[in-house]
Amino acid sequence: MRDELPALMSRRSLFSMIGKTAGIAVMYEAMATMAYAADSTFRQPIALTGAPKGSSVLILGAGLAGMVAAYELGKAGYKVQILEYQGRPGGRNWSLYGGDTYTELGGFKQNIEFDKGLYLNPGPWRIPHHHKAILHYCQLLGVQLEPFIQINYAAYVHSTKAFGGKPQRYRSVEADFDGYVAELLAKTVQQDKLDRPVTKEDREILLQALRGWGALDKNYAYVKSEDASNRRGFDHPPGGGLDAMPTPTDPVSLEDMIRGRLWRSIGSSKAYDVQQTMFQPVGGMGMIGKAFGKELGEIIRYNAKVTEIRQDKRGVTATFVDTLKGGAPQTAHADWCVCTIPASVLSQIPINVGAPMKAAIDALPYAASAKVGLQMKRRFWEEDEGIYGGITYTDQPNSMISYPSTDFFKRGKGVLLGAYTFGPNAVEFTAMPPEERIAKAVEYGANIHPQYREEFETGATVAWHRVPWTLGCAGSWTEETRAAHYNDICAIDGRIVMAGEHVSMIPAWQEGAVLSSLDAIGRLHKRIVQG
Amino acid sequence: MRDELPALMSRRSLFSMIGKTAGIAVMYEAMATMAYAADSTFRQPIALTGAPKGSSVLILGAGLAGMVAAYELGKAGYKVQILEYQGRPGGRNWSLYGGDTYTELGGFKQNIEFDKGLYLNPGPWRIPHHHKAILHYCQLLGVQLEPFIQINYAAYVHSTKAFGGKPQRYRSVEADFDGYVAELLAKTVQQDKLDRPVTKEDREILLQALRGWGALDKNYAYVKSEDASNRRGFDHPPGGGLDAMPTPTDPVSLEDMIRGRLWRSIGSSKAYDVQQTMFQPVGGMGMIGKAFGKELGEIIRYNAKVTEIRQDKRGVTATFVDTLKGGAPQTAHADWCVCTIPASVLSQIPINVGAPMKAAIDALPYAASAKVGLQMKRRFWEEDEGIYGGITYTDQPNSMISYPSTDFFKRGKGVLLGAYTFGPNAVEFTAMPPEERIAKAVEYGANIHPQYREEFETGATVAWHRVPWTLGCAGSWTEETRAAHYNDICAIDGRIVMAGEHVSMIPAWQEGAVLSSLDAIGRLHKRIVQG
Repeated sequence: MRDELPALMSRRSLFSMIGKTAGIAVMYEAMATMAYAADSTFRQPIALTGAPKGSSVLILGAGLAGMVAAYELGKAGYKVQILEYQGRPGGRNWSLYGGDTYTELGGFKQNIEFDKGLYLNPGPWRIPHHHKAILHYCQLLGVQLEPFIQINYAAYVHSTKAFGGKPQRYRSVEADFDGYVAELLAKTVQQDKLDRPVTKEDREILLQALRGWGALDKNYAYVKSEDASNRRGFDHPPGGGLDAMPTPTDPVSLEDMIRGRLWRSIGSSKAYDVQQTMFQPVGGMGMIGKAFGKELGEIIRYNAKVTEIRQDKRGVTATFVDTLKGGAPQTAHADWCVCTIPASVLSQIPINVGAPMKAAIDALPYAASAKVGLQMKRRFWEEDEGIYGGITYTDQPNSMISYPSTDFFKRGKGVLLGAYTFGPNAVEFTAMPPEERIAKAVEYGANIHPQYREEFETGATVAWHRVPWTLGCAGSWTEETRAAHYNDICAIDGRIVMAGEHVSMIPAWQEGAVLSSLDAIGRLHKRIVQG
Repeated sequence: MRDELPALMSRRSLFSMIGKTAGIAVMYEAMATMAYAADSTFRQPIALTGAPKGSSVLILGAGLAGMVAAYELGKAGYKVQILEYQGRPGGRNWSLYGGDTYTELGGFKQNIEFDKGLYLNPGPWRIPHHHKAILHYCQLLGVQLEPFIQINYAAYVHSTKAFGGKPQRYRSVEADFDGYVAELLAKTVQQDKLDRPVTKEDREILLQALRGWGALDKNYAYVKSEDASNRRGFDHPPGGGLDAMPTPTDPVSLEDMIRGRLWRSIGSSKAYDVQQTMFQPVGGMGMIGKAFGKELGEIIRYNAKVTEIRQDKRGVTATFVDTLKGGAPQTAHADWCVCTIPASVLSQIPINVGAPMKAAIDALPYAASAKVGLQMKRRFWEEDEGIYGGITYTDQPNSMISYPSTDFFKRGKGVLLGAYTFGPNAVEFTAMPPEERIAKAVEYGANIHPQYREEFETGATVAWHRVPWTLGCAGSWTEETRAAHYNDICAIDGRIVMAGEHVSMIPAWQEGAVLSSLDAIGRLHKRIVQG
C-alpha cells in the first residue's frame, strides 16, 4: 500500500536490485553513520555551477520533472527551453476547476461546472511530510500548503459483504481488530504457548502492553466496556450535567471481525508514503505547476507536440508541430536533452537512442487509474456525520471516498473525491464515458451516504488511459521489468537523459518525478563539465 | 488516556452510575434506534423560549460554561449578567501572547515575551471533531478553526531507559510493536494453539490479516524487509534515477520492543477524545473566549471577585468586590443563578446551598497540571527533522513535546509546548518558580532535540494550582466521589444551578463545560417556566 498504485507496485523488486547499481555504496556508508533512518534522499537543494558558456539543454515536457530540470539547469547557466504538448504547465500536477474544459481520448469533452474555489485533483492530491524535494520547491515558489487529513476515525470502512452493507466507523473497526488481536495473543501468552522463548518477566510486560493497547478488561478479554467504548465509540457518549452518563457499544463478534474483512483498510495509513503529517497546496495541487510555469515564463513553449527526437554528435533536435496554429513541423535544437515524456507516449515517437534505452521505453506499461470528483450542494459529511477530511474505504468499484481537507465548517458546497480506482476497477471505469463514470460514483457513494441522492450536483472525471498526453496514470514496473530495464532508462544515452516518476523508485508520486529529475540533471551536468 | 487528565480520571465510575440517573431512559431508547453510535450528546442548538417577562439570571464566571449560559438565556428572554473575577473573558480558555503579563500565586509575575503571532495555550489546546457543542459555538461566533495534528509518524517516542536514551521515530515504534504482535499471534494461529475455537477458514483469513497488518514475510515473521521498512522507515529511502535503490532498516529485537516500553505511547491517539480529525482555533484557543466576550459585551462585569452567594425565596444575591477600583462590597441580584465558579474556589466562598450540594462542592479536589511554552529562534523540528505538528512522548517529567500545528514551513520562530504534565510531575513542576519550570523543560527537551541549547529564546508557563481563579486544572472525580456527589452537584438547589467541566463526564475538556451549561440551563429554564 506504499504507493499511489498499490495493486501494481512491487517494492521487492527494488531490493533484488540492490548491489546491481554501482557507485552508491559510498552514499550508503554515509547514511549508515547518520543518527536516524533517513526520511528522504533529498538533503539539500541542488546547486549546479559552471555550465560551459553557451551550452544548451532542450527539455521535453513541462511536468514537474521537466520544470525542475529547466529551473535548475537555467540557474546553472545553461540555455534551456521546454517543449510542452499542452497549453498549461504541470502535466499530471493538475487541478480541474469550474470553467475548465477537458477532452479525453474518444472525443468526450467535459465542461467542468464546479463552483468557484472547488476543484478535483485528477492526479496527485497529497504530499507526505518526507517528500522533501517537492516540498522544497513548494517553499521556493511560494506555494502555500495546508494539512491533508489522511487519518480520520470518523470516516467509514464499508463492505457490501459485511454488516449488511452498513458502513462502519473507522474507529470501531480498528478498535475491534486491535482488541481481538490483543485478546487472542494475551491468552496465548498467559498459557505460555508462545512459539518463541520469552522470559516470564517479558511475558508480564507484554501482557500489560496488550491490555492497554487492545483495551482489554482485567481478564485480558475484549468485551463491551468503558475502555473498549473509549476506542470504538459510545451509544450515548459522555456529556454534561444530568445528560452525562455514557452507554457503551457492543463490539462485533470475533468471527464477524475476521470475516467482515474490514481489517483490510485499517492499516492503510501506516504505510510510509501516507504516514501523517501530509499536506496539500491551498487551492489545488495544480498550484505547484502553475507557480513553476509562472517562474519559467517563456522558457516553456506550449502547444508543441513532439513528433521526432534525433541526436547526433553535435546535439539533439526535436521536431514538433504547433497544435494550435498548425503549419509545417518546426524544430528545436540544443546540445543536450532531458526527456520527460511518459514512456507510454515516447514509445510512439521516433527517437534514436541505443537499443537498451529503447527497449526500456517500450517495455514499460502504464497503470490504469480513474478519479471522479462530485460536487455536492451541501457538506453533509461534515454537517450530518462529523467527518472532516480523511478517507472512507469501500469494496465497491469506486474504492474510496475522500472528503475535502479544506474549507472545514464552511456552510455551502463541496467537492468529494467520489472514486479513486486502480487495476480492474480502473479499467472498467476507463471503458465508460465520463457521465457514466460520474453516475456510477454517485450510485456507489449513495450506498454509504444516502444524502448523495439529494445533494449531488455536478461531476468531473479523469480516466488516465484516456488522457492524450500520458496514456495512463504512471509507469507500472514489475520486478522483472525493473531488473531488466531500470538502469537502462536511467542511463544517459548519448546526449539524452530521461526523467519523470517512471524513472524513479517512487512511481506515481510527484517526489519520484522531482528526485528523478535532480538525479538526471546532476549526472548530465557532470557528464557535460567533465566531458 | 481518554481525558486531558489521563492519570486522574476513571471512566468506570461513570458506568457504575448508569441507571442511577432518572429521566434519560427515553433518550437512550431514541439513541438506540439511530443507525450508528452517537458521537456527541449535542445534536442541535438549544432553543429556549418563553422566559417569564422580567425574569433574570445571574451568572458567576465568564468561562465557556458561564458565557454559553448568558448567551442562550439572554436569547430566551432572560435578563442576564455575568460577574467575572478576571479582566478578560474565557477562563481556562486562554492563550498567552507577547506583551501579556501573568501573576500566579506566590507572587511570581511573568512578562510574556513571545514574538507577535506566537502563543501558549495554558489550558485547552485541541478540539476533537465530535465535540460538537464547542464546535457549534465556534461556528456561531465566527471563530476560524484549523486542523490540530494529533498523529505524526515523524515525531518521537523517548525513554531515558531504552535505546540508550535515543528517541525513536513514532513510525518505527508502532511498526515494531504491530509486527511482533502479529508474528507472535500468527505463529499461534498456525500451530492451532488459540484459546478459543476458530474455524480453519477463519484462521486462514486471520493469518492473511496479520500478515498485511503486521508487515510480516511469507513465513509470518517480522524481519528486516521491504514491507517492514515500508512501515518503520528506510536507511536510504526510495528515490529517483540512479539514486533510487532503497536500503531497509533493522527492526529492534522482540525483547527490546517489549522492555523498551515505548509501546506505552503508540496507542495514545486511539482514545476517543483524541481521535483525528482534531482542530484548534487560528491564533490560539483563547479566540473562542474573546469572541464570546465580544458577543456578550457589557453583560460581563469584569474584575468582580465574588465573596458571598445568598439565595432566598425571592432570588439570589452575590456580593462582590471590584478588584481594580476597590471600595465597598457591592451586590448583584437576580431571580436565579448559574454558578460556574470552580469547586476549588467556590468551596471557600460562603454560599447557602443545601447540604448535599455543599458536600459535593467540598468533596471535589482539583487536578494538578502544568504547561511550559518555549519560543525557539528557528523551527528546527520542521527544518532539521521533518516534524510538522504532532506530539513527542517522553518518560521525562515534561511528559511530552508538542509542535505547533500552524505556520507550517514558515521560516522563523515558533513556540513549542515543551512540557504538559500531570500527577506527581505536575506537582513537582508546580512547586518550582516559573523560570525553573522553563529551565527544566529546556533541559529535558534538549535530550530529545539538542538544538534546544542553541535555539531557545524565551518561555512562559502556567502551573494550574497556582492560578488564583481556579486553584487547579480541572475537577478530579474518583469513582467514589462521583457515586456520592455527582448527581448532587448537578441538581438545582433552590435557585442555583452549577455548570462547568466539573459538572460533566468530560472533565478538563471545553466540551464538558459547554454541555454541562446547556444541560443546566435547559433544566433551569424548565423549572422556571413550569414553576
